[in-house]
Amino acid sequence: MALYSESVAALIEKFSQLPGVGRKSAQRVAFHLLSLSNEEVKSFAETMVRAKETLCFCSICQNMSDKEICDICANDSRDKSVICVVEDPRDVVSIEKSMEFRGRYHVLHGVISPSKGVKPDDIKLRELVSRIDGTVKEVIVATNLTVEGETTAMYIAKLLAPLGVEVTRIAHGLPVGGDIIYADEITLAKALAGRTRIG
Amino acid sequence: MALYSESVAALIEKFSQLPGVGRKSAQRVAFHLLSLSNEEVKSFAETMVRAKETLCFCSICQNMSDKEICDICANDSRDKSVICVVEDPRDVVSIEKSMEFRGRYHVLHGVISPSKGVKPDDIKLRELVSRIDGTVKEVIVATNLTVEGETTAMYIAKLLAPLGVEVTRIAHGLPVGGDIIYADEITLAKALAGRTRIG
Repeated sequence: MALYSESVAALIEKFSQLPGVGRKSAQRVAFHLLSLSNEEVKSFAETMVRAKETLCFCSICQNMSDKEICDICANDSRDKSVICVVEDPRDVVSIEKSMEFRGRYHVLHGVISPSKGVKPDDIKLRELVSRIDGTVKEVIVATNLTVEGETTAMYIAKLLAPLGVEVTRIAHGLPVGGDIIYADEITLAKALAGRTRIG
Repeated sequence: MALYSESVAALIEKFSQLPGVGRKSAQRVAFHLLSLSNEEVKSFAETMVRAKETLCFCSICQNMSDKEICDICANDSRDKSVICVVEDPRDVVSIEKSMEFRGRYHVLHGVISPSKGVKPDDIKLRELVSRIDGTVKEVIVATNLTVEGETTAMYIAKLLAPLGVEVTRIAHGLPVGGDIIYADEITLAKALAGRTRIG
């Protein structure tokens, strides 16, 4: 005999597929949701669909946005001469919170990983190269301090070398092997301030 | 400047209101969801609404169900002479997994708690009393081993005393102060087998 009705089991299954959510957490979250009013559950579901439907990627920096050009790229007070390259949209959020960086971003949506079959063409590197014109003086590579992140940083350094732009690497203020999204603001600020030249 | 678009911020906010989900987890889950296809997000949202819409409560035991009478109450091979009283539908799931109990359940949907203003009439006690007829020989009170759970157990013992039914309490195999939903199957099986008479 099933322990849950089919529709409740389906909901628990959906939640347990989310990252960091185990079976017991999924059950707890699902039961909490079912204890809300019909209107609250509908509102949650609609928020989900609307967030996905309005989601697009900034045509300049490739960050998640709900506009053709994101707020950061559209902001003229941000320094056009520095681009900070990150793996993931969440990294932009973390670095913005550090309040240390006033330039623009470029979101790669991944890192080069031969073991996972991710090639340079699979991430937003062409879009990065196309942004390097006379106005860009420095590209700060803020990929994570993992093998893949370091490989990608070296690749970018070589890729941009002929274009006359300085390529720097975010400093080892971050714990090695750690993810940028879990770093605290002060560590991130230090890591940005202590960046070193690569390539 | 907002770190997220409005619709993404709204989604993170929804997730962070779920139990056991902090801000960073909510962000991670929201970004993961946005990385899924439109169809997958819609399917998640529909699962949510459908689970809520089909949800009702068994007219006999008050457990969550998608039918007028739940699978356990409708199952004639379950022992009609024993009712196990629990606080929450999740407790039924935990006890079913222990495979130790072959009777029926009664879900109170809460416990008596003077400090939180929960009175006997606010939980499904009247529905329990109305089930006590000649066929029910024993009521096992499996509320949690908290002050409120114990208070509720004592209240039930006094309430049912005039009705000629034996009221027992699930044994202290459970860690005191712990929740039934987090107990492992063997502990729960022991706790059921070692139940003692109260009242």
